[in-house]
Amino acid sequence: MALLRAATWKLSPWRGYCSRGSQVWCGELSQGFVEALKAVVGDPHVSTAASVREHHGHDESMHRCQPPDAVVWPQNVDQVRRLAALCYSQGVPIIPFGTGTGLEGGVCAVQGGVCINLTHMNRIMELNMEDFSVVVEPGVTRKTLNMHLRDSGLWFPVDPGADASLCGMAATAASGTNAVRYGTMQDNVVNLEVVLPDGRLLHTHSPTLCISGPRKSAAGYNLTGLFVGSEGTLGLITSATLRLHPVPEATVAATCAFPSVQAAVDSTVQILQAAVPVARLEFLDDVMMDACNKHSKLDCPVAPTLFLEFHGSKQALAEQVQRTEAITQDNGGSHFAWANEAEKRSQLWAARHNAWYAMLALSPGCKAYSTDVCVPISRLPEILVQTKKELRASRLTGSRIVGHVGDGNFHCILLVNPDDAEEQTRVKAFAENLGRQALALHGTCTGEHGIGLGKRQLLHEEVGAVGMETMRQLKVTLDPRGLMNPGKVL
Amino acid sequence: MALLRAATWKLSPWRGYCSRGSQVWCGELSQGFVEALKAVVGDPHVSTAASVREHHGHDESMHRCQPPDAVVWPQNVDQVRRLAALCYSQGVPIIPFGTGTGLEGGVCAVQGGVCINLTHMNRIMELNMEDFSVVVEPGVTRKTLNMHLRDSGLWFPVDPGADASLCGMAATAASGTNAVRYGTMQDNVVNLEVVLPDGRLLHTHSPTLCISGPRKSAAGYNLTGLFVGSEGTLGLITSATLRLHPVPEATVAATCAFPSVQAAVDSTVQILQAAVPVARLEFLDDVMMDACNKHSKLDCPVAPTLFLEFHGSKQALAEQVQRTEAITQDNGGSHFAWANEAEKRSQLWAARHNAWYAMLALSPGCKAYSTDVCVPISRLPEILVQTKKELRASRLTGSRIVGHVGDGNFHCILLVNPDDAEEQTRVKAFAENLGRQALALHGTCTGEHGIGLGKRQLLHEEVGAVGMETMRQLKVTLDPRGLMNPGKVL
Repeated sequence: MALLRAATWKLSPWRGYCSRGSQVWCGELSQGFVEALKAVVGDPHVSTAASVREHHGHDESMHRCQPPDAVVWPQNVDQVRRLAALCYSQGVPIIPFGTGTGLEGGVCAVQGGVCINLTHMNRIMELNMEDFSVVVEPGVTRKTLNMHLRDSGLWFPVDPGADASLCGMAATAASGTNAVRYGTMQDNVVNLEVVLPDGRLLHTHSPTLCISGPRKSAAGYNLTGLFVGSEGTLGLITSATLRLHPVPEATVAATCAFPSVQAAVDSTVQILQAAVPVARLEFLDDVMMDACNKHSKLDCPVAPTLFLEFHGSKQALAEQVQRTEAITQDNGGSHFAWANEAEKRSQLWAARHNAWYAMLALSPGCKAYSTDVCVPISRLPEILVQTKKELRASRLTGSRIVGHVGDGNFHCILLVNPDDAEEQTRVKAFAENLGRQALALHGTCTGEHGIGLGKRQLLHEEVGAVGMETMRQLKVTLDPRGLMNPGKVL
Repeated sequence: MALLRAATWKLSPWRGYCSRGSQVWCGELSQGFVEALKAVVGDPHVSTAASVREHHGHDESMHRCQPPDAVVWPQNVDQVRRLAALCYSQGVPIIPFGTGTGLEGGVCAVQGGVCINLTHMNRIMELNMEDFSVVVEPGVTRKTLNMHLRDSGLWFPVDPGADASLCGMAATAASGTNAVRYGTMQDNVVNLEVVLPDGRLLHTHSPTLCISGPRKSAAGYNLTGLFVGSEGTLGLITSATLRLHPVPEATVAATCAFPSVQAAVDSTVQILQAAVPVARLEFLDDVMMDACNKHSKLDCPVAPTLFLEFHGSKQALAEQVQRTEAITQDNGGSHFAWANEAEKRSQLWAARHNAWYAMLALSPGCKAYSTDVCVPISRLPEILVQTKKELRASRLTGSRIVGHVGDGNFHCILLVNPDDAEEQTRVKAFAENLGRQALALHGTCTGEHGIGLGKRQLLHEEVGAVGMETMRQLKVTLDPRGLMNPGKVL
């Protein structure tokens, strides 16, 4: 049955992006194919309306390309399997969609195709408080989960800022402010349920959906690790078993201003070397602090600043705070503001988390792009100092630096006027150059945003020819028709 | 050039084990091929002597099969590449060999072939104290590394008991007593240099051998995670970049006896739920404690016992110890013995680490087999109590239980008389049954020893048909001729 209306095929400007061994999808969907989608998920759960497709055709980044040809909302995993099998049989690309809060164009429909919006599957399926684990469907966001857990004494700490879906966070190997203490999604996903491109159902760690799993395993190849961070290019994640953590007995947050970028980052390195188990360790530059003061009504010094948070027993916290304060003072830190109360802490972290949105709010009409390099901690001072210089030299003066410096990961948030092609070129050149600097320091071009559309060349430079060839082989093996989120990563 | 002497081929009884898509190697090596091996590594570094081959044909487990046809000792990665290319061109199996301390027959030469002993490559290549990382060649063992680090303030905590090679530990996803606090090899390997079956050189995380790497990355597929735990079936690990940890300011160890297995394990679960950051949390049953007392000259009560260790500042330790003591007392724990001094601690842990060897020493002529299941913590009490009963019912009365219960991972060390076929059958049946019980509780058949030869059927039951098919596809993709350590894992 040829569901594609051959006569209406149009050439896609993006077909060059599809990966080796894949079939090139070159056209819009036939009415027959759309009807077949409706037969799977029901009429109200399929849309080909331009506004809906447009909404699903981009994330929060600058990346833009054509929208998907249709958007579908499956209600359960069986429907996802049937959708995948249908697309597979007809060679139609599939783009998984969660909250659309990605920053590297991961949901762009490079070759058109069907966008599968998984947010209607939003059950928190099982909570196992004894084993600190939970099973969530792809529509559950991190804030929803933590709200659900609020009286359990447990929480899920991975926090990329946006209220992203947890399965989307697994797909992109998200991390964020708590990773220095609690790890990234790589460390906190126990098991994934994945619909493979042809509709088969894979559980990466066990043959069934598990309420919990062992804390470690040496059984066969690490499939969970392979799918975490695969950015939707190998399959659709339809549920995730996550590791939860005990809510700390006490929490203290603090800010500390420094005379220079170097002094702030030197403090960071020394805090880590002293094995202080800091939970969050964030850097904001002077420009960013100025914006935070204005947007979040703070009165912090306009200077390079560390945001810190400590988790533990009251007694342990006192010791951590004391050690940290000594280290920061040795480096010229001043204007300590320790926040013990939840409200004051929330205000501080809201300011940090709103960095992206605050900046856009203060710059009407502008878009933003965030770099995402991560380097060994010892190389942080030199790359941050250099980056500040280059931001000035590139005349990207509205731009700010924020970062999870405890991991060596930092972002330059670059403002772009979408009508200024020359500025866009400068932003792109700056970001690529920064990526190459990170690689030269044995770092990575992406600590947490992923490769998506924009960093495929840098990935090549990062992992080398054999690394790329190996990744391509894995892609072709698991997605032989090249239908899963084509044009991303590779 | 046909280096194989076709006329002398003999049929291998193991050829049925080779994986799908591979070529079956059916014979001993020709003189010409042995000369070709010598041309790569030099005459003194190749052996076909029966005693040498025999020594390399098994690990510390019961698993036995034919020895390899030759053993070679490459001196550097270039030689490893040339050896791999040579074997690849001739369809000869390759078995990587480290210290031979594995417990699942991972080095057995199921189809004969060439054993590549990597222990002559034993340099600690780079130590980066600022970034807590080190690069080691495959001959470096964990004790050698920690001796090298002794004045640096850093250490490598993953400790499977045996003084295994670190790259071998990466290949088998080893963990051991410290994993509850510091994670397994999956968490502590940053980058691997791997010689692929055809001789190409892959760096799983960066294009070159790195003195350090970023603490996290979202760049492409997680190749490091795929090779960690692949048990030599995808390539030869020729160096590893490892994450080091600060030596704790203070350490306290303790033992505590309990009236029952249930009471000991209930304490374990409660200690973890109270978020006490325990560094080691080991369980030994009464039989094991009796053996430890005799072998290591201790005078501990002959009862179910927890061995604990805490790492941290002196102040933090006092609090951890206090909390733990309260929990164990609530569960009827008694006979506390806290050890603050290094000497006393070493004595305790030597007793724990010598469990395997102690048992063999006390049972002349016997071999041992260790089970290795791992279950969610909440299921530990029931499976441990049940296992004690079944050990008695199986008349495996000399057997003992030890375990990293902080992870839900425990071992039954089963004594076997190699001349008693009926006993061997009972041991095998007991181990398989225990594996299935763990799976029924959402656990794994192997927490740290790997699949090797003995658990391939259990792996199938653990990951299901689609999981197995996915793993087989990955194997065929990366090792298309099925030459890397054939007959293992899959």
